[in-house]
Amino acid sequence: MPKKSSSDQPRALADINEWYAQCDVLILGGGGAGMCAAIEAADAGASVIVLEAASDAGGSTAMAGGLIYMGGGTPTQQACGFDDDIEEMYKYLLMASGPNADESKVRLYCDSTLEHYTWLTEQGVTFKPEYYAGKHTNTPNCAGLMITGNEEAWPYNQHSVAAPRGHKPLIKGDHGGIPLMENLIRRATEKGVSIRCDARALTSIMDGRRVCGLIARIDGHECAFLARRGVVLCGGGFIMNDDMVARYAPRLVRGNYPNGNPNDTGAGIRIGLGAGGAAINMHEGFICTPFYPPGEFLEAMIVDGNGQRFINEDVYHGRMGSAILDRPDQRYYLIIDSRHFDVLNRPPNGGYPVAGTGDTIEELETELKIPAGGLCNTLQQYNRFAAEGKDPLFHKAEKYLTPLDQPPYAAYDLSIDAGGYFAVMTFGGLDTLTTGEVLTIERNTVPGLYAAGRNSAGLPRCAEGYASGMSIGDATFFGRLAGRSAAANTQGLT
Amino acid sequence: MPKKSSSDQPRALADINEWYAQCDVLILGGGGAGMCAAIEAADAGASVIVLEAASDAGGSTAMAGGLIYMGGGTPTQQACGFDDDIEEMYKYLLMASGPNADESKVRLYCDSTLEHYTWLTEQGVTFKPEYYAGKHTNTPNCAGLMITGNEEAWPYNQHSVAAPRGHKPLIKGDHGGIPLMENLIRRATEKGVSIRCDARALTSIMDGRRVCGLIARIDGHECAFLARRGVVLCGGGFIMNDDMVARYAPRLVRGNYPNGNPNDTGAGIRIGLGAGGAAINMHEGFICTPFYPPGEFLEAMIVDGNGQRFINEDVYHGRMGSAILDRPDQRYYLIIDSRHFDVLNRPPNGGYPVAGTGDTIEELETELKIPAGGLCNTLQQYNRFAAEGKDPLFHKAEKYLTPLDQPPYAAYDLSIDAGGYFAVMTFGGLDTLTTGEVLTIERNTVPGLYAAGRNSAGLPRCAEGYASGMSIGDATFFGRLAGRSAAANTQGLT
Repeated sequence: MPKKSSSDQPRALADINEWYAQCDVLILGGGGAGMCAAIEAADAGASVIVLEAASDAGGSTAMAGGLIYMGGGTPTQQACGFDDDIEEMYKYLLMASGPNADESKVRLYCDSTLEHYTWLTEQGVTFKPEYYAGKHTNTPNCAGLMITGNEEAWPYNQHSVAAPRGHKPLIKGDHGGIPLMENLIRRATEKGVSIRCDARALTSIMDGRRVCGLIARIDGHECAFLARRGVVLCGGGFIMNDDMVARYAPRLVRGNYPNGNPNDTGAGIRIGLGAGGAAINMHEGFICTPFYPPGEFLEAMIVDGNGQRFINEDVYHGRMGSAILDRPDQRYYLIIDSRHFDVLNRPPNGGYPVAGTGDTIEELETELKIPAGGLCNTLQQYNRFAAEGKDPLFHKAEKYLTPLDQPPYAAYDLSIDAGGYFAVMTFGGLDTLTTGEVLTIERNTVPGLYAAGRNSAGLPRCAEGYASGMSIGDATFFGRLAGRSAAANTQGLT
Repeated sequence: MPKKSSSDQPRALADINEWYAQCDVLILGGGGAGMCAAIEAADAGASVIVLEAASDAGGSTAMAGGLIYMGGGTPTQQACGFDDDIEEMYKYLLMASGPNADESKVRLYCDSTLEHYTWLTEQGVTFKPEYYAGKHTNTPNCAGLMITGNEEAWPYNQHSVAAPRGHKPLIKGDHGGIPLMENLIRRATEKGVSIRCDARALTSIMDGRRVCGLIARIDGHECAFLARRGVVLCGGGFIMNDDMVARYAPRLVRGNYPNGNPNDTGAGIRIGLGAGGAAINMHEGFICTPFYPPGEFLEAMIVDGNGQRFINEDVYHGRMGSAILDRPDQRYYLIIDSRHFDVLNRPPNGGYPVAGTGDTIEELETELKIPAGGLCNTLQQYNRFAAEGKDPLFHKAEKYLTPLDQPPYAAYDLSIDAGGYFAVMTFGGLDTLTTGEVLTIERNTVPGLYAAGRNSAGLPRCAEGYASGMSIGDATFFGRLAGRSAAANTQGLT
């Protein structure tokens, strides 16, 4: 196979002389979406090969906090004493998905959430029935349940009833992705799925408009893999591909921490485009700046370089990151008074430097070079309303509203170039049906081609609405459906 | 030709039994880009056919104000007494193109601006050597020169020297696109270009990876057009395609006036994608809300529903529209005092309703339901700095800074749902080289395929930086290059 393969030049089936391996369902990527697709395809009786570019399966899911967005009264929610309602979850997720929401995916995801919970537990994934009540980016202990997004924050709290829906696979601390992927990989292997590591997919093999395999590079050789029923693209996002980020998601270029694994280069998206698929929502992504924990910082006031507030400070860290990246040239400060100085030795998680201190707010205003009156007026108005438990400007929840009236004052610098952490990852991907079938620009299906996880445009569609658990929830659930669809494809090769 | 053609299913050359017409260079779209491509291709000795979906050529360019962004000391600039420098124009346009700028296009466009001016005049386009100094969306008289963007506004004025660069083809008032297109169409026709109207392009004809024609529907029949050297896609943006706007540019859904002609359905973009091209910058577009003229409104203060200012009020109307659409659920008010009441019978151009009046600013604050103190503090701070000719918050130019201290006060409602005008059009399109060659996702060229105007991603890349004249400037200049490239293609059919 002398020719160097490129994603934009699919290989013709007729030109393949030798198959390196053959299967019914061929899966690109051994992360959360790919492993769930593999398990379901194997359960449907298909022979399955997974091509993984890394030396081990797991993908970005294995590196993640592992939160999975599920609700409607899961056993974990019930054990922790929480009621939930699928309709409230639906309303929340639809709003969280923003102006480019895929209603059909949100609907099916919510209607299937209890079934998906059960399925995950059947794969061996466990969730400790303990609720973590603090404001955090993940449960710092073994607790299996927390609130993971903007459910309690305005304006989301005006449109749906909040419930904790972030489910973390059992582990102490941040790395819930590890037990999740360990279970999924073990289960796939038990079912006879063949995981080919160090195999980098390059392009599709097509029979006319139909996808029937992939070319992958293994040990420096281009190897042809036949997929009799279908190919499922689960190769992750493209945050590690600087050229693609610059061309498709330029807003994310300002991020300073690409959130993913080194193989998140958009290979699956590019292969899908080369095979005739269309990509949507390519400009969007997650922008995380963890100004909490500690949760005390939600009582702080966050202002811009003119001393103006711009958002309710009790939002999810991703919503704050999105607001800051909307005006990346502005300055941003988190303002605390002496009552919060006890947390100065536990600075906000994001690694922001101290920007200034002042015995009075006027002094801090001057030190931060805020135009005279800007910070003072804002604080005075904030305090006056906070004393009444109100925030008519941005509707911060009453429980976080405390007048900042105990000088001295201090400020952290949350500006994007100040040294704090702004983690970014992409949301864009192939346009797919809930079945995982990949669509063309005219929304016709590409025969034999399926996608899930961040090779597809799934539940997460906008930075400002994102919640932890939407990505892995989406990847695992729609990965399952894509694997099932591919296994059931009767239009493949016979 | 029984099969119904779709852009995502190119027709194979081998399957074409009968050619409706043959030419060297086939152009989709008879607007500004297409006509310039046609003239240049004809000049290069190619036989040229233009397929136009409407019953007459002209496209959205003919409906537009007709401003063309040119500089570096054009004869019109010189006759009006303005110096300009290509490097200053370059710095401005690069910044105006935003984070997704194509530096190579900006560079070539600026380096060629005097040549392009000459070429346009050679086609018969004239610019009256008169400068219009007022703040307006187009010259209301016959004047051929005005400032069309944010050149004088912060932060652009910090990075380049402003000059008037908007050149309007000679006509009284708004419709400079008419004389522009009349001249281009006449010149193309003189050169033997065949313009086929009522011809709707459906899909490409391909020989392997090479594009060598188009299928178009004429009188209900699908007709095959052979292009021996190349196909140039100049079919306009997709603002009239609700499905594409929702999927690719959801931010623009909030606009209430699609700016274009009914055939701006993205057909050329879709045909290009079907032929293997990649589309970039699809989420971006122009968002115009003309809060001026009259220019007196630049002395107003524009605040959000919390009474906070958010931008220098002397920006281009597109930058204001972009800022408002960034937070579409907010309220926005333009605040004037009694010194401006003489313009109340000349309300701002955008058709905004009066939101409230007040004998004092406190009364107006209450009437607008702004949280107590919000508008009063903002006005007090604004007036204090304005009295010193300064705006340290947003850097509005001194000439527009007048304290608003003559009650009573009044406010116009600039909120997006208040009834004012928010015109939108798309910027996304096929990824192209400066030559017009269409690129795949891997940035390889698609042989035989070229694009220009809003079928390509050109100079205009972001809403907040846009200036009038960038679109027609881009379309006419890069249309020329694309036509020339297609005519020079020696890899076509022989």
